Amino acid sequence: VSFSEKIIARARALGHPLCVGLDPFADRIPRLFGEAGSIAAVEAFCSEMIDIVAPHAVAIKPQAGLFEPWGHQGIAVLERICAKARDAGLPVILDAKRGDIGTTADGYAEASLGCGQVFATDCVTVNPYMGLDTLEPFVVRAQANGRGVAVLVRTSNPGARDFQDLDVNGAPLWVRVAEALKPIEARLTIAGQAFSSLMVVCGATWPQEAARMRQILPRTLFLVPGYGAQGGSAADAVKGFVRSSDGVLEGGVVSASRSILYPNEAAEAGTLSEWRADILQAVRSAGAELSSAVSLKGGLA
Amino acid sequence: VSFSEKIIARARALGHPLCVGLDPFADRIPRLFGEAGSIAAVEAFCSEMIDIVAPHAVAIKPQAGLFEPWGHQGIAVLERICAKARDAGLPVILDAKRGDIGTTADGYAEASLGCGQVFATDCVTVNPYMGLDTLEPFVVRAQANGRGVAVLVRTSNPGARDFQDLDVNGAPLWVRVAEALKPIEARLTIAGQAFSSLMVVCGATWPQEAARMRQILPRTLFLVPGYGAQGGSAADAVKGFVRSSDGVLEGGVVSASRSILYPNEAAEAGTLSEWRADILQAVRSAGAELSSAVSLKGGLA
Repeated sequence: VSFSEKIIARARALGHPLCVGLDPFADRIPRLFGEAGSIAAVEAFCSEMIDIVAPHAVAIKPQAGLFEPWGHQGIAVLERICAKARDAGLPVILDAKRGDIGTTADGYAEASLGCGQVFATDCVTVNPYMGLDTLEPFVVRAQANGRGVAVLVRTSNPGARDFQDLDVNGAPLWVRVAEALKPIEARLTIAGQAFSSLMVVCGATWPQEAARMRQILPRTLFLVPGYGAQGGSAADAVKGFVRSSDGVLEGGVVSASRSILYPNEAAEAGTLSEWRADILQAVRSAGAELSSAVSLKGGLA
Repeated sequence: VSFSEKIIARARALGHPLCVGLDPFADRIPRLFGEAGSIAAVEAFCSEMIDIVAPHAVAIKPQAGLFEPWGHQGIAVLERICAKARDAGLPVILDAKRGDIGTTADGYAEASLGCGQVFATDCVTVNPYMGLDTLEPFVVRAQANGRGVAVLVRTSNPGARDFQDLDVNGAPLWVRVAEALKPIEARLTIAGQAFSSLMVVCGATWPQEAARMRQILPRTLFLVPGYGAQGGSAADAVKGFVRSSDGVLEGGVVSASRSILYPNEAAEAGTLSEWRADILQAVRSAGAELSSAVSLKGGLA
């Protein structure tokens, strides 16, 4: 089963494309998980989160940068969390934004997409700035091992404009990056499948650009961050999706993290069961909102 | 003591700007360090390397991607190796090529440049594609803690052309990135010091571009990879350096890794003392070659 097949099948089964971004901010994790700022609290929080969201999300996207402050102990937790998600049948998109020249990229790609992989991931995010040769070790392993590669193209942060929007002969840089990915889209598409296992990051905060991205990469999966806390609406988030023959918009995942992980203002949730109920409600509510957005009439034909 | 002061002072004392790139390729580490492909062999190899090169190099640049395939065990070794270099008085440039949006970049920056830092580093490499706001957490910590930030601008790999050379209103993208870094150059320059603690990656394989980079960023340190095995000559590598009042070219470090770490073709070195002698000769030879290059007449005035 390819990465794209797995993602599309789960989104159809659930009726929405929600991906939960696993961003463990140490100062927002409720005290009931342990000492504030401890890696034990991070692990307990992430582990509980997987139990709750596994039946309700298409995928989970752990944020490697939020485990790294604990060094090797944080990475050990990230490994166990990825393994737990895999064992729960929940596809893992490791949000690591890696990228380096060939021989080093091999190291990163082996860790996330290799056969003896360290992180039990289905897909990893990579940065294209250094060029196509730096993406190659990831693409080769994704193709060989039925996994995916998610390339940063148009990100959701305000500063994305600084370089991604610079005009390159009549089109912004991000369009040129998307165009350069077309051969990879083809290589990661299995005959008979609607979508490639190439994924592009396309921020929900820039809905007008999602349609343009879709024109360039008609079969690529979209990884849409920025829905929820970052300000993108559900309708905006699926702007680049494609209407399937049965009338549903599909073609990627929409990621929400803070709005699901931290539904309450304070880190002082009540009991564990109250906290679980709050998270379950947040994930169901985001799923329902996205479910409406993908089944509405309109959008791209 | 700021990062730039430390780097410039060491280069003056040694008479050359050699930085050793610590790239532990599992299949090239001599068998005498232990089982091929084991993390124990990687640690023994890196640890010996620091003992040998500490008195002869300006800095060491461990390649994070080559520790990641061992997951948390590899990261634990990377932590110990960085700490050992610091204890040996050898500045550490962590080559991690990190980059992410604000809150996550905070995590990465805290791990490498924070006060309770996990990696004992003086500087970390970062990727600018996502925009200036994604560099900010690194810049803030570098400024507060006397450390450096090395931004990828013009890399040494063939694929660097794919995006970095795209024309943006009459200049390549990498020039626009360099221009955008000017305020950071200023913020990381301490009054009375010749150089900023901002560093830019500027590949030795593109010497004609180093002079242009220097015009844009006159006080920025250059991190020049690609010298040695990647094909850049010593003279090419210092093309962007600046002639000091005492006639020496300075303003950055030149990194060599494979030519120093693996001076012999086969992974079958003889005894440990023979191997040590080979490494010492390789590092001295690279130092001598760079020493000639920085003291030659010519270059930038």
